[in-house]
Amino acid sequence: MKKGLFIVLEGPDRSGKSTQAAMLRDWLAGPGRKVRLTREPGGTYLSEKIRAILLDPKSEIEPLTELFLYETSRAKHTLKVIMPALKAGEIIISDRYTMSTTAYQGYGRGLDLKMVETLNRIATMGLKPDLTIVFDVPDKVFRQRECRGNDRMELQAASFRLKVNRAYKKLASAPGVTRVNAAASIEDVHSRVRSAVAALLRKKGFGTR
Amino acid sequence: MKKGLFIVLEGPDRSGKSTQAAMLRDWLAGPGRKVRLTREPGGTYLSEKIRAILLDPKSEIEPLTELFLYETSRAKHTLKVIMPALKAGEIIISDRYTMSTTAYQGYGRGLDLKMVETLNRIATMGLKPDLTIVFDVPDKVFRQRECRGNDRMELQAASFRLKVNRAYKKLASAPGVTRVNAAASIEDVHSRVRSAVAALLRKKGFGTR
Repeated sequence: MKKGLFIVLEGPDRSGKSTQAAMLRDWLAGPGRKVRLTREPGGTYLSEKIRAILLDPKSEIEPLTELFLYETSRAKHTLKVIMPALKAGEIIISDRYTMSTTAYQGYGRGLDLKMVETLNRIATMGLKPDLTIVFDVPDKVFRQRECRGNDRMELQAASFRLKVNRAYKKLASAPGVTRVNAAASIEDVHSRVRSAVAALLRKKGFGTR
Repeated sequence: MKKGLFIVLEGPDRSGKSTQAAMLRDWLAGPGRKVRLTREPGGTYLSEKIRAILLDPKSEIEPLTELFLYETSRAKHTLKVIMPALKAGEIIISDRYTMSTTAYQGYGRGLDLKMVETLNRIATMGLKPDLTIVFDVPDKVFRQRECRGNDRMELQAASFRLKVNRAYKKLASAPGVTRVNAAASIEDVHSRVRSAVAALLRKKGFGTR
């Protein structure tokens, strides 16, 4: 049933994912090719409601409840946005997907990794990205990028955020995953992203631009 | 860690669960014994928010998303309400728990039963009720009890509701589950509930009243 392409951008907060996602979309879009940008948590009416709960600094959310909230949002997002887009032959770029849950709730919160993997598999109905790009931030740079955000996830302790950053380094070495040094300039990062995506397009017979 | 007692009342809509739960609570409550009544979906601030989404007739919710919403609410409810009450030695009565998800989302919606069981186990962290009482409504009576409710679950097709009713009959024959004929009078049903709970109290050394 899958005819489109599913590209996921991953990495810690402030690694440049959203900027790069928009640049990638602009580069990919063209005549006869539909490109859609989406994000997690979010992407649907229900998922955005859940996003608001998750990011509200006043929400008291235990790690297991947090995991279920992300997976609920993911199930809805996958069914309502990603699968229909793929079926229609579109290229869909998601800012975060299952790897975020493994990094934040698995490695970061310390929840059982097999349990996280089980919920990831159920919520996605087994759907896997065609390409996952991880924006890798060197620990030293990570510490320097002072966190100015004020949502519930960005307000987590520095030790939690560092654990997540290290988890991404480990996850970035998995097969089928492209690691990009996020400490480079925006243009250099974009160029690396483009070449990874161009290789995927050739492989899948989509034709580059 | 568990010192209290966990009693769950199950059955289709309009089987008298809520009425019986309140009667049971009143019968059980007494000097030196703390009894708490709760319900699913709901029981916490977050879970009641999710309940509102689930029961809103305007919500468009696929079966898998519905499953995840119920399990999210359950994880929160279990962590925040049920486990602390049990730890404090209380008797907690819940109007619905995991069996509802097996009946409605598993048998009713046709979702994979093993998948439902997996999510039930993860959301409850393996916690099992000490006693589950199923209010069994004969199919004939079930058809006669015209559904006057207007929430999203009560507005489901009659065929769905009948599937759920039949699922409860099957689930009621599991070990450790007490089946009560919900077509009897309120007082007769209450008397059957009391005797099942009294047997549990004796077994657990709680002393009957």
